[in-house]
Order: sequence, then structure tokens, then C-alpha cells
Amino acid sequence: MNRRMIFRTIGQILIAEAMLMLPSVAVGLIYRERATLAFLPAIGLLALFGTAGLLVKPKTKLIFAKEGYVIVAAAWILLSVFGAIPFRIAGGFGNYWNCFFEIASGFSTTGASILTNIDILPKCILFWRSFSHWVGGMGVLVFILAVMPKTEDRSLHLMRAEVPGPVVGKLVPSIRRTANILYGVYTGMTILLVILLMIGGMPLYDSLCYAFGTAGTGGFGITNAGVSAYGSAYIEVVIAIFMLLFGVNFNLYYFILIRKVKDAISSEELHVYLGIIGASVLAIAVNTYHLYQNIGETLRYSFFQVTTIISTTGFATADFANDWPAFSQMILVLLMFSGACAGSTGGGMKVSRLILLVKTGIQEIRKTIHPRAVPVVHLEKKPASQPLLRTTLVFFAIYMFCLTVSTLLLSLEEPDLVTNFTASLACLSNIGPGLGKVGPTGNYAFYSSPAKIMLALEMLMGRLELFPIFILFSAPLYELKNKVA
Amino acid sequence: MNRRMIFRTIGQILIAEAMLMLPSVAVGLIYRERATLAFLPAIGLLALFGTAGLLVKPKTKLIFAKEGYVIVAAAWILLSVFGAIPFRIAGGFGNYWNCFFEIASGFSTTGASILTNIDILPKCILFWRSFSHWVGGMGVLVFILAVMPKTEDRSLHLMRAEVPGPVVGKLVPSIRRTANILYGVYTGMTILLVILLMIGGMPLYDSLCYAFGTAGTGGFGITNAGVSAYGSAYIEVVIAIFMLLFGVNFNLYYFILIRKVKDAISSEELHVYLGIIGASVLAIAVNTYHLYQNIGETLRYSFFQVTTIISTTGFATADFANDWPAFSQMILVLLMFSGACAGSTGGGMKVSRLILLVKTGIQEIRKTIHPRAVPVVHLEKKPASQPLLRTTLVFFAIYMFCLTVSTLLLSLEEPDLVTNFTASLACLSNIGPGLGKVGPTGNYAFYSSPAKIMLALEMLMGRLELFPIFILFSAPLYELKNKVA
Repeated sequence: MNRRMIFRTIGQILIAEAMLMLPSVAVGLIYRERATLAFLPAIGLLALFGTAGLLVKPKTKLIFAKEGYVIVAAAWILLSVFGAIPFRIAGGFGNYWNCFFEIASGFSTTGASILTNIDILPKCILFWRSFSHWVGGMGVLVFILAVMPKTEDRSLHLMRAEVPGPVVGKLVPSIRRTANILYGVYTGMTILLVILLMIGGMPLYDSLCYAFGTAGTGGFGITNAGVSAYGSAYIEVVIAIFMLLFGVNFNLYYFILIRKVKDAISSEELHVYLGIIGASVLAIAVNTYHLYQNIGETLRYSFFQVTTIISTTGFATADFANDWPAFSQMILVLLMFSGACAGSTGGGMKVSRLILLVKTGIQEIRKTIHPRAVPVVHLEKKPASQPLLRTTLVFFAIYMFCLTVSTLLLSLEEPDLVTNFTASLACLSNIGPGLGKVGPTGNYAFYSSPAKIMLALEMLMGRLELFPIFILFSAPLYELKNKVA
Repeated sequence: MNRRMIFRTIGQILIAEAMLMLPSVAVGLIYRERATLAFLPAIGLLALFGTAGLLVKPKTKLIFAKEGYVIVAAAWILLSVFGAIPFRIAGGFGNYWNCFFEIASGFSTTGASILTNIDILPKCILFWRSFSHWVGGMGVLVFILAVMPKTEDRSLHLMRAEVPGPVVGKLVPSIRRTANILYGVYTGMTILLVILLMIGGMPLYDSLCYAFGTAGTGGFGITNAGVSAYGSAYIEVVIAIFMLLFGVNFNLYYFILIRKVKDAISSEELHVYLGIIGASVLAIAVNTYHLYQNIGETLRYSFFQVTTIISTTGFATADFANDWPAFSQMILVLLMFSGACAGSTGGGMKVSRLILLVKTGIQEIRKTIHPRAVPVVHLEKKPASQPLLRTTLVFFAIYMFCLTVSTLLLSLEEPDLVTNFTASLACLSNIGPGLGKVGPTGNYAFYSSPAKIMLALEMLMGRLELFPIFILFSAPLYELKNKVA
């Protein structure tokens, strides 16, 4: 392993995080908040460790898949380790692990919170909390690729490890330009959302925070009442539509930009994604109509809750955990598995993986009937390779394995199985709220610190799609094994 | 498709079922029960339809995998359709669908019941109910292969479809002899169990019924109190040990019989199976010690509950759904997924599939680090083929899919998600009791008839390992498609 290159790249990332704290400092200065000072030690430490990393001179800049995964996994854990410092110093979050949970939830765009009272926190702290969603949504390494010069020679492995989905390709031959395009689209859509929210009467600060939470499909609010606080159907619908949009593969927006609209709207994953949303909204509307007694309102609540869950954002305008019937709850749980499209800022297993799973299942049954048939599974009209299918199937199995282990361990301290299972799922799929005690009106405060650390790692695991974190923890074992052998 | 051969073989199976009702008639005659008469119309109908099937003269006896699956799936559904008739006529079960649920639960060796009061039922009816476990445990087609002459030319496909596990092989070149050996071992072990139970003071009739339920890993009792009714630690331990033994691949017993003891005890699946049991017993014992305050008793309850669930039998001597802590409940839920060994009478996913899943997962992570490595997964020291791995992964995905759909549909009528999920799992994995309302002291009576039909089909689906039932229902679609094309 090219350790020097790992240290160097992580150094760059820590410097980037220090810079990413500056907008929050600016917010603190504008509102003249004492809590602004909480950022200074964090920025100092990041600058110190970051510079130390940058001083490491690698013999070669060459890195392989393994280094890519290790860098990405270590970087995301360190981002959370340092990102938690302002929370801890400013106070209001409890011990350090609560802060770590909260910021890991931010970067991983989960939106699960240990806060019982959000209203009392300073604006600059809440800004950092929401901004972490925006940073985590598109990815820190993609950010570095987009803004730093001369990163070409090690970039595809980094991007592969950070961008979600079963297949990650470059939009244009240059990776730097690809990263630029992605961040350009992302920023443009975020600004559009801020403008639309301000048109609806939301103040600029609030609009920025909610736009970060929506764009990153995160889900942190800035008041206890959340999106409902504004009492505006317009704001709810705008946010719901944008949650849906940020759950779409960003490549499609690029196609639209370069006037390949036909390529964009013919995407199979998009059709299935919209199909799932449509079917879920209808089913839930029928199932919850008795609660709202009004078609428009029922559809609005149903649409918001469906897009918030499938995009893995996690804002909520209805307390589905306490008020909704079991059938609607189950649909939401299924959407938590599915998640959004590959190449979006959303989490979960991704719709394209679901498509591959279902098609492979059908092919397998067909093959049982006709043993000599050669099964071919198509995705986006292209045949999927056997290794891709295999990886997708294994991904599903590991996903279930993580969920199971997490639910089992949580049950050591919390007796409600539904709470434990949906907490694990909501963290692994980067949703935020689950059912039971971790529903929209609940929070994760009651879990012990070890449980919170585990859930925080699950969030990062989910955001990075499992493999990087596993590789980070297993790489030293392999190194050791190779040395012994 | 060779339809004539399908009808003919199903005819044979119906005749076999008529014969299999005779022991229950004998029991009824011995105890001079009126309910004995309930068997006569069933036997008459079976003889009628069976003879009609036998009259069909096939042009060729050749059948392929597809016919094999269709025969097995259709046969098991018809066995339940006709097997329910004595229950309906004798009364005490409610409507016909309750009876269908109960006998499908019997044949599939699930042991889930809709009965709220077992004590009032006649002995001959309870005998048929328990005997169906014994018939379903080793399989009706394997039975036919064992007893009927000249079945060689179509047998492997039938056996493959009926015997559980990822790989089904012949023990000896002749399939008939293989089937004979399997039923020989099965009968021998059942008789041994009957003797051991009688030594413990259990009456002959009870011993037979409990031996059927244990050997088939079914789980129907003959009183409301079940195994605990005898208040004998000896009986509980004997049954627990035999549940464990019937969850072992029967091939291993054959190896022991032909003095290849080394081959038998070196089985990888056996080691993992025993390892899971050992670890689960210990973990549950530590977690439930405060309930029993006595090491011996704690271990006994823990051992019985673990073996009853992993072998997918479903007898229970502790009310784990109401009394046990969440962690122990979760371990039982995991054992419900795992199930017993391939080639045993137990259900679930099978330990060997779990081994393949875990090894494939580890290989996949390794492959991410070293993209050029060729991953090889070994089972029982032999390399597993790519198609086998693929089928295993798809099997897991379809298993989860069935569970999910079933839980979703059940939530239309029952609000408790834990009840719905464990009911689906307990039926699909052929366990019997789950958690919540379907725990050891509960039953399935409260579900509606459509829900019961669905659960009954899931039990058969689980017993036949998913594919046959899917193929039965999708085969007409393919035929139609081929005709149109």
C-alpha cells in the first residue's frame, strides 16, 4: 500500500474541512454568536494535522483500488471526528460521542439526531450541522477533485469509492471536469431551491439550511417543528419535489444540459424510481385517507413522506410512526431499503440494484426451467456483466447482514424490536427517522454511547456503500497476514 | 411439457395419500372414535382422483426439470387440499381454509396452528395432524420413489425438487435405493425416539405423535401444554437432542452406517451447525439466567428453545415471545433464518447456504481490494461452482422478497409489525411459533382466510425451497407466451 499517498490525500481532506467550516464562522459573526469561537480550535487542529499530512512526500502518486477505499473510509471517519469538535465546545449535545453521532449523521446525509431540543442551539452551530449534509451529499473527495489542480492520476479510484451506485463512470474523459460538472449541477439546483423557498416566505438563513438538508438528502431541520413550522403547503411541496429531484442520478441532469434530453428521460432507473414513488403515494393515500378526510391534503402528506423516505432525506410532515396504519408504515420501511437512484445524493440500496436483483431473480427461475438457457440481465438496455450481478447480490447479502448484526446488538439495551430494526435500517440507508422510538417525533438520544458509535459507523458505511469501511478495518489484517506468510 | 406424465405421477401421489390415511383410521378404530368416519370421504375422493390420474397413459415417461418442479409443487398443494378434508368433517377447526392452513402446516413440517383448544380433538384427528409432519419431513415423492417399483426414469428431478439444500446428490447410483436408505434411516431414528420417550413414561400414542413431530421437525403437539405437559426433564432433553439430530444432513447417517464415520464427522456444515447451536445456547443462557436462577435449568430451557428453532420444529417449553429479553428473541429470529442442515427434515435457508453466503461476501470484499484475484469459494472442501453461488445468492434475495411481500400484505389487517414479520418468517422457514401474537402461547387463528391461504402457500414454498411453487404458477404464463410467439 502507498501509505504516504494515503496520508497526503487525507491531509488535503482535513485542510478542505477547515475551509468548509468558514461559512459557519461567517454565519456566527453575522449573528454575533459566542458559539462562533467553538470553530476555532477545530479549524486549528484540522490545519495542524492537515499540514502534517501534506508534508508527507510520496515516492509515487500511483494508487490502486485498495488505497482508494482506505482513503475514502478513513477520510470520512476523520471528517466526523474533527467535525464533532464545534458541537462539543458549543454545548447542548451532551458528551463527545453524541457530537460524533450527530456530525456523522450530517456528513452521511442521514439526519438522525440525538437532540431533544433543537430550538435552543446557536445559528452558526445549526448552520454547520445542515451544511455537513450538503458537503456529504456530493462527497468531499469529489469536491477536492473539482477544486484542486492536478489530481488526475489517482482520482477514478477515489470517485468510485465515494459516488454511490453499482456502476460509476466518468461523464467526460477528464475526471476533474466530471467532478466539476457534478458540483456545478448540485450548486445550481441548491441555489434554485433557496430562491424558491425564499419566494415562499422562508428567511434566507432558513432557506439555506433547508436547501442543504434537501440537496444532500440529509434531513436535519433547524427547529423542533421542522418543515411544518412554516405552515406553508407551498414550501412543503417545493421541498418534496426537490427531494425527489436530488434522488435522481445526476448524470441525467448533465445529459439535459448537453441537450441529450432523450437519453435522460429514457433512463430505466428513472422510470422505476418514479413508478415506485407513484405507486407508494397512491397506496399510502388510500390507506391514510381516513386520517385527513381530504384528497388534496392526503396526497400532499403521502407525497411528502414518500419522497422524503425514498430520497433518504428524512424530513417529516406527518408522524407516520405513531399515526399511520401498519400497511403505510411497511411501505415506508420498504422504501428505506430501496433508497434513491445511483449517482444521486440519496442513500439506501439504490433503485438500480433493486432492478438488477429482481431481474436476476426472474432469470434464475427461468434457468431452473430451462437449465441450458444462458441468463442475460439488462440494465439501461445494456447487458449486465456477471461480476456486476454477483457484486450486486453480495451487496444485498452484506446489507442484510449489517442490519441483522446491528439489530441484534441494539436489542441488548432496548427491548422494542421495531425500534432497533428501523433504527439500524434508517442509519444504514441514511434516512434518519425510523419507527417506534426513533420515529419523526422521537430521536436517538436514549441509546448508549457504544450503540451510538456503532450506528454512526453504519451511517458512514451506508453512505460509502459498505465496502470501503470493511476494507479499512480488514486491510491491516491482510497486511499482517502477508507479512507472516 | 409432458402433461400426461404429470397427471399420472400426481395420480400416484393421491393414491399414496389415501394409503397414508390408513394408520389414522386404525387409531380411530382402536379408540372407537366417531371421527374415524371423517377419513372415509377423503380416502374415497383420493382413490377416485388418484385412479383417474393413473388411467392417463403417457406417450413417454421422460420428464425434465420443469415437469419435476411442477409435479412436486402441484402434488404438495393437492396433498393439503385433500388432507384438510378429515379436519373439516370431524370439526373443531372452523372453516375449510383453517383446515387447509393446518394440514399445509403439517405437511410442510411448520407446526403453525389455528387451533385455540387442542385438548378437545379426537385422537385419530390429532394422529393425522402429527403424522402429516412425518410424511412431509422426508417427502412424499421420496416415499413413492422408495416404495414403488420402476420409477427410475424420472426420479432425480423429483428428488431434487423435494429434498432441501443447495446441492442434492444420490447416495448410491440407484435413486430408488437412495430413497430407500433415506426412509430407512428416518424410520429407524423415529422408532428409537419412540422407545426412548416410552422409557421416560410417555404413553405409546403420545410417543408416536411426538416422535412424528420431532422427526419431521414439525412441531404440532397433542395437548395445549405441549411437551411441558409431561413435567419431565428427561423427555424434554431427549426431544431436544432428537430435534438437533433430525436437523443434520441424513447423508451423514448413511456414511456412519457404511462405516465412513470420518467422512460424517468431518462435515463442514455439521461443524457450523453445532457451532451455531453452541454459541446460541450460551448467549441465551447468559441473557436469560435471571429468569431461571439455576444454571442447569437455564441451559435446559436455552438448549431446547435453540434446537427447536434451528431445526425448525417449533415445540416450545418456554414462552420466549413474552418472557425472554429482546436479545434472546433476536437470536431466535436469526436461527429462524438459518434453519437446519441441507438434506435434513428441517426448513429455513439451511446452514450450507449461510456458509456459502458468508464466504462469498468475504471473497467479494477481497476481490475489491485485489481486482484481478479469481475468487473461489469452498464448501465441504470442494470448490463451489459459479452457478451454485449465483443460485444461492438469488435464493437469499427471493427469500427476503417473499418475507417482505408477506409482511406487507399481513399489515393490511394486523397492526403489529413484529407479529406480521415473524409470522411470515415462521411460516416460510417452517418453524411454527414466532414472536408477538404468534408466539408459543399464541396461534394464527386471528388472521383472515386470505391471509391464512397466503401463509399456507408460504409454508409449502419454504418446504420446497421456493422455486417449485414459483415455477408452477409461472409455467402457464410461459406456455401461453410460447404459443403466442
